[in-house]
Amino acid sequence: MNNNTIFPFTDRHIGPSIQGSRAMLAAIGIPSLETLISQAVPKSIRLERPLNIPEAVNEAEALEELSAKMSQNKTHKSFIGQGYHGTHVPAVIQRNLFENPAWYTAYTPYQSEISQGRLELLFHFQTLVTELTGLPVASASLLDEATAVAEAVGIAWRHHREKRSCIVLAGDVHPQILDVVRTRAEPLGMSVNGGEINADVAAIIVPWPDTYGVYGDHSAIIKAAKAAGALVIAVADPLALTISASPASLGADIAAGSMQRFGVPIGYGGPHAAYLAVSDALTRLIPGRLVGQSVDAKGRAGYRLALQTREQHIRRDKATSNICTAQALLANMAVSFAIWHGPQGLRAIASQVHARTVRLAAGLEAAGLKLGGKHFFDTITVSVPGKAGSIAAAAEKDGRLVRIVGEDRIGITVDETTTDEDLNALAALFGARLPDAADATLPGTRPAEGFMTQAVFHQQRSETEMMRFLRRLADKDLALDRAMIPLGSCTMKLNAAAEMLPVSWQSVANVHPFAPVDHALGYKSLTDDLENWLAEITGFDAVSLQPNAGSQGEYAGLLAIRRYHLDRGDGHRDVCLIPESAHGTNPASAHMAGMRVAVVACEDEGDIDLDDLKAKAELHGANLAALMITYPSTHGVFEEGVKDICKIIHDHGGQVYFDGANLNALVGLARPGDIGADVCHMNLHKTFCIPHGGGGPGVGPIGVKKHLAPFLPGHVAKGSAHAVSAAPFGSASILPITWMYIRMMGGAGLKRATEMAILNANYIADRLKDTYPVLFQGRNGRVAHECILDTRVLKESAGISVEDIAKRLIDYGFHAPTMSWPIAGTLMVEPTESESKREIDRFCDAMIAIAGEAAKVASGEWPKDDNPLVNAPHPAGDVLADDWLHPYSRSVASLPAGESEENPKYWPPVSRIDNVAGDRNLVCSCPPMQAYS
Amino acid sequence: MNNNTIFPFTDRHIGPSIQGSRAMLAAIGIPSLETLISQAVPKSIRLERPLNIPEAVNEAEALEELSAKMSQNKTHKSFIGQGYHGTHVPAVIQRNLFENPAWYTAYTPYQSEISQGRLELLFHFQTLVTELTGLPVASASLLDEATAVAEAVGIAWRHHREKRSCIVLAGDVHPQILDVVRTRAEPLGMSVNGGEINADVAAIIVPWPDTYGVYGDHSAIIKAAKAAGALVIAVADPLALTISASPASLGADIAAGSMQRFGVPIGYGGPHAAYLAVSDALTRLIPGRLVGQSVDAKGRAGYRLALQTREQHIRRDKATSNICTAQALLANMAVSFAIWHGPQGLRAIASQVHARTVRLAAGLEAAGLKLGGKHFFDTITVSVPGKAGSIAAAAEKDGRLVRIVGEDRIGITVDETTTDEDLNALAALFGARLPDAADATLPGTRPAEGFMTQAVFHQQRSETEMMRFLRRLADKDLALDRAMIPLGSCTMKLNAAAEMLPVSWQSVANVHPFAPVDHALGYKSLTDDLENWLAEITGFDAVSLQPNAGSQGEYAGLLAIRRYHLDRGDGHRDVCLIPESAHGTNPASAHMAGMRVAVVACEDEGDIDLDDLKAKAELHGANLAALMITYPSTHGVFEEGVKDICKIIHDHGGQVYFDGANLNALVGLARPGDIGADVCHMNLHKTFCIPHGGGGPGVGPIGVKKHLAPFLPGHVAKGSAHAVSAAPFGSASILPITWMYIRMMGGAGLKRATEMAILNANYIADRLKDTYPVLFQGRNGRVAHECILDTRVLKESAGISVEDIAKRLIDYGFHAPTMSWPIAGTLMVEPTESESKREIDRFCDAMIAIAGEAAKVASGEWPKDDNPLVNAPHPAGDVLADDWLHPYSRSVASLPAGESEENPKYWPPVSRIDNVAGDRNLVCSCPPMQAYS
Repeated sequence: MNNNTIFPFTDRHIGPSIQGSRAMLAAIGIPSLETLISQAVPKSIRLERPLNIPEAVNEAEALEELSAKMSQNKTHKSFIGQGYHGTHVPAVIQRNLFENPAWYTAYTPYQSEISQGRLELLFHFQTLVTELTGLPVASASLLDEATAVAEAVGIAWRHHREKRSCIVLAGDVHPQILDVVRTRAEPLGMSVNGGEINADVAAIIVPWPDTYGVYGDHSAIIKAAKAAGALVIAVADPLALTISASPASLGADIAAGSMQRFGVPIGYGGPHAAYLAVSDALTRLIPGRLVGQSVDAKGRAGYRLALQTREQHIRRDKATSNICTAQALLANMAVSFAIWHGPQGLRAIASQVHARTVRLAAGLEAAGLKLGGKHFFDTITVSVPGKAGSIAAAAEKDGRLVRIVGEDRIGITVDETTTDEDLNALAALFGARLPDAADATLPGTRPAEGFMTQAVFHQQRSETEMMRFLRRLADKDLALDRAMIPLGSCTMKLNAAAEMLPVSWQSVANVHPFAPVDHALGYKSLTDDLENWLAEITGFDAVSLQPNAGSQGEYAGLLAIRRYHLDRGDGHRDVCLIPESAHGTNPASAHMAGMRVAVVACEDEGDIDLDDLKAKAELHGANLAALMITYPSTHGVFEEGVKDICKIIHDHGGQVYFDGANLNALVGLARPGDIGADVCHMNLHKTFCIPHGGGGPGVGPIGVKKHLAPFLPGHVAKGSAHAVSAAPFGSASILPITWMYIRMMGGAGLKRATEMAILNANYIADRLKDTYPVLFQGRNGRVAHECILDTRVLKESAGISVEDIAKRLIDYGFHAPTMSWPIAGTLMVEPTESESKREIDRFCDAMIAIAGEAAKVASGEWPKDDNPLVNAPHPAGDVLADDWLHPYSRSVASLPAGESEENPKYWPPVSRIDNVAGDRNLVCSCPPMQAYS
Repeated sequence: MNNNTIFPFTDRHIGPSIQGSRAMLAAIGIPSLETLISQAVPKSIRLERPLNIPEAVNEAEALEELSAKMSQNKTHKSFIGQGYHGTHVPAVIQRNLFENPAWYTAYTPYQSEISQGRLELLFHFQTLVTELTGLPVASASLLDEATAVAEAVGIAWRHHREKRSCIVLAGDVHPQILDVVRTRAEPLGMSVNGGEINADVAAIIVPWPDTYGVYGDHSAIIKAAKAAGALVIAVADPLALTISASPASLGADIAAGSMQRFGVPIGYGGPHAAYLAVSDALTRLIPGRLVGQSVDAKGRAGYRLALQTREQHIRRDKATSNICTAQALLANMAVSFAIWHGPQGLRAIASQVHARTVRLAAGLEAAGLKLGGKHFFDTITVSVPGKAGSIAAAAEKDGRLVRIVGEDRIGITVDETTTDEDLNALAALFGARLPDAADATLPGTRPAEGFMTQAVFHQQRSETEMMRFLRRLADKDLALDRAMIPLGSCTMKLNAAAEMLPVSWQSVANVHPFAPVDHALGYKSLTDDLENWLAEITGFDAVSLQPNAGSQGEYAGLLAIRRYHLDRGDGHRDVCLIPESAHGTNPASAHMAGMRVAVVACEDEGDIDLDDLKAKAELHGANLAALMITYPSTHGVFEEGVKDICKIIHDHGGQVYFDGANLNALVGLARPGDIGADVCHMNLHKTFCIPHGGGGPGVGPIGVKKHLAPFLPGHVAKGSAHAVSAAPFGSASILPITWMYIRMMGGAGLKRATEMAILNANYIADRLKDTYPVLFQGRNGRVAHECILDTRVLKESAGISVEDIAKRLIDYGFHAPTMSWPIAGTLMVEPTESESKREIDRFCDAMIAIAGEAAKVASGEWPKDDNPLVNAPHPAGDVLADDWLHPYSRSVASLPAGESEENPKYWPPVSRIDNVAGDRNLVCSCPPMQAYS
């Protein structure tokens, strides 16, 4: 008997109690969970055996096991650099942001009114990036430095209307950046090399400084590029930028880099926030998220996502980026670091790093050693013919890792955590001694005046102020720690504390991604476990954990298919079939992978139109590359014919790409690999408990069948190529979250979670079906793990829009479900297994009460233009106003469910934010695929 | 150059920036901080040299240094038991309560309206204790198990009107309990021994089970005790009580014990919550805090502290307890553990522990070993003649610690964390093997039915629900993480995250207080540092860290004085002089230490009346034991004559006890030891950054001059006696907080903090003096670190009471300052050094605005019985009510400082709680000392 038999974590993770689930089954008139599952899930796809996953252990046991595993990692102090730097995470940020569920359980800020806190902080992040780069527009972060540079290349590609095919390197960027940029450029027909500037050059990439730490003189090539109309992309270290010349001053049109060293742990490579900034002229081409300032209905300032820039939603299969996420939590950590230190503090850190570096350099030169360049910030390379290995080994023995550059050079990168003791020990390895001071070697300096002058960077210098600043922002937002977030397709389930604790461990946080293999044996064991478990769960032969977002998983999966066809001499196979119900990223990913998109029609009930599929498969026949399919469908239904669909594609020589967005409805019940998929991505931040972090991080591994395994992403650090992320294991430091989840659930628990997610969804569908028609029910009238409520009935009867309902839910203390996707005018509700019957009932009560309110509008009791729905949400300032001229009372406005139920009530800080028309219907609210077919 | 030169922690700890402090100095018309200090602090007491404390390091360096230090501790698995048990802290509680500033930075819940969350949870704690013990009334926790038993003895003492002098032990309690009880009983003239029951027996103490784990048959002695009118005190393990017979069923009148094993780490002995429960008849005698249910002005249910039970405030020098605090944070952790597991879970844990214990026992007996008793729960002792040492050593080698009971017995205690692997290894040490099962050995069982049936113990079973439950409660309360808490005398300064992080470390949390010395070398080094630093700061020769509250420090200090006199044959010296301005605990402590209290008059300005002091010293002459003095005075002023005062006492053969409540005004500027004090207690939870935890924990070390050093508290674990706490170092696991603070501040930083605290107080006094007269200014019209605002001007002009102002401050988003102490009708404001000018100005603005509101009442614009002051605070339900019949607007009610300043606004969950008359003026609001002179 172990403790687990007393407290299975499964019962903690799953919301409804035994009594609760019995009551729900009774309410929908089904005798057992098994009956429900047999009604909802086609027998033809059911997995008829238990998952082969180790038996669950409880949280104490799992923590102990993981701790032992990760303690195999060596946390030597790193001087490797190469894009990853030691940094002190300020304790006030660690405790009040990084380890605070109010921050990390928040969803992407699509609903502006309940996201003002994190939108404000992301806005400050953008401001910070513009200050650092000197460029006027910055996005709210990208996935990592390498993909950020790739996105910059994508901007150049589009800027030149996809007509220029060369990218010229003005110097040596980090190898992992070059590899990712080449991975992304190749399917677009672009080359990335050194070379001459000519009219086919879309952009030049200027490393500032280069991977060996050297600032080159790039004025000539920049001048030539400008003359040729090529864009200038600077890859710049943000800490150096606090004291050195900015990319804008060099003439850069675009700047990109990693914000990791602003207080985000290395974590074996991620997650970290990358930055991207552009000139005014390129504003409309910036990919990913951009936070803008707007006003609410009463003129209060308010922030919102400016989604018009999310190009894949406008261009879809014409897009050059499929990015629809960010590293919100990490970007918010980075900007908090800047707010905490302010410009003086950041410059002091940078100056200290630089001062240490030049002293080390001077000491080495005085000892007769030759360095790699004249101008540098924090990195030097030392020429040690034939001795690189032995010196690195000696450093390692002392507890320090340096970079081995071939057999003859050693790279040393100084950071915020470097001490004089470190420097002396490193110098001693070369027989050198450190001088007390040495001259700065930056290629130019930046004046302190006029830099980061915004108030926010000056007001939170004491910890008391900083702590309250972070709490104030958090309190403005509604996250999973206060209420259900029933987002269809986004699976906002519990992020258990025991899953989160290991992320803060030193053994997890302080490992460099390019450390020697024997320094990361803990990570090796962790990733091996995860690859095996995820392969078993999905029915595949191999898994790559590298993609650090679902979109990157999609891309990596399609790239594997592309490379498979190429490898077989089938390079002509470039047509990707996508149902019109697909997520917006699907066509964008296909385009990026060099495929042409062909749309497959869907039936009225949302299922793929088999006849059209057959026709399209035949039409494209010899050129068919792949089908992308989401299962259960984006309509929340288990389609019966999914195996037939796969067979049709295979019969025509195509590969089946399986979008894992809805994997939460399958785990333990069915496996994509068994159904017929060749490749599938999983969202660890949906199905496997990594929190959404207010809009990132995410992890999007892919599983593949054996024949595709050779085409999984490689990495330069492992001697291979075709990486899709900067680090070999992408966002490695958050993988322990998923490990803990699977370890504490076991196979039986995972299956049970899926079943309960389906029960919860069917219970909601049943409770609300008389109020809002439930669209797209599957066999036996059952839905899968989510349901689509048709709110157009209120539009027809009372003129109440789906947005009105979403905003009114805020007054009831809820985050809205997914709005108008996949069908305009609907709400897609996914309760997940983690919500209790009590919370689900509270939500259903609110939805029914809202319909009741709409009825009063329909009956004329309340005017159509003045009722609690169209005026929602109601901030305190509005309902306390001296003049209250509305036909409903203040308590109806703000305490619609009564006082006690919502005590303490969530108060939105603003009323409805004025979104420009194009920004309505934010979540996955792409124009329907038909528009492009 | 180290990083500290860039970011001194001092600048993070101190609120005002350089600009802010300059602006404040300019506002009060003083050229420099040094000038202010020279004006405020008498030159005669100034320390004219820097403190001899190591130079400050920054937070990363301090964390690294402490981590290295504490890693010297060995965290063997403990089977020692003896009151301290391994337990799994549920991750959801660790993250969302234990490590959450919203919980730990909260103040004691004297202001009910902003404390409903923690009051509710403490109320559940009381409910839990009554369920476990079967007794009807339980307090909101006590300091530790040993003092809880001593408090039980105190109840018996008072119950018998101090006329019965024997306490009879019905069995062996833990040695540390016996020692503390004897320490406390001796000055009262009581004996604690085994023996006959007669009419002089106040109570019997029944261990349930005893220190060796054995349940005796106590029915005969209990029957005899009842017949003799003696009370029955049961000392019972709460985990065992979930499955075994309750104290009430035995016939106990009182039950006490430790709640540590309910999810609170051992932490080298503390802090943990002890419980105390009594029969109905003893309700009015229960010491410490009791939470009761009440209603607010609108009839909503609300919780409040029922202070009528704080006996020292009623009886003062007649009190048998000086307890005025609790272990709120730890009690809240313990009850959260019970809420998380529910009765089923608790019983499952207990059953598992018991099942493992009986298997071990059966295995040992089968191998021919002899055990200590028949009925046991989790502890057995094994007879191993002559081999106890060698077996314990063998266990230690395997990573396990057992209890050595003399040379011939080994004690083994099983807990929640024990595994079968542990049991097998332990059995093997004795040459025994474990059977698969064995019969239970409890002396009686408790039926599952009717146990912990309250809803709260059943509704938070999923982690999502538990997380939201804890957040909801936290959101009801106003803590330091949202706003200034300007409590005079209570010093609510920053509790920095870097100070708090180490408390969660395994090396800090998992050390048994009775582990062998070489297992706690990290703690040894930590306590050595702290003793040295605190001695240097206060000017004493020796320091004891044992007292785990200020009241315990006071008591330990007076006990040292008592024992000093006794040791010199001056046992007749038993008169303790106490100024009438003293804290209420002073006379209570003196009484407990066997002293008679004589009151010394104060002048109108608050200073001690020197003439009266001389007269009293002469009057009591040969019998003078001590003077208790607070400095700066409880009126917030540096009295000029303090050295003369000490001289007078010494001239009459008395000792000077220095109440360290106001040490925050002295550190680095003056030292009690230099001024003339012989002993002084310090509140590490005030001056040295340990958070108040919503009403505990605290640490109250004492410093003494050389001649008193032999009379510091000892401990049975160190072969000595006269302990005042259960553990040798009291609340050891939170000492790292103070260590980090001093290490990061250095001597110069500590002094600077004091100076800034004085500047902040003088700035407030200056800004508000035209609105509220500032009472008791010292030399040059300056105050010390706090100031007393006379709010009676509003009473006179507008009938607005100090309570109205305090409650109205809630609407403005502030916790009220200390009310009506030391002078009725005043507010004592202590900003501390950690508040920024911005926050201080916000507070002053609110105070001035409130006076403006009172002016409207005075002018008749608002009626005296209907205005925002008398109706304060205003919960959302009130201001949103359909009927608003007040003469002021809703926005005036709830957004008095405007919307943007208070976004997100703090909303009180209730309106004014109906305190019975005697519970008004809660903080230190004792009847004036004069009443007893």
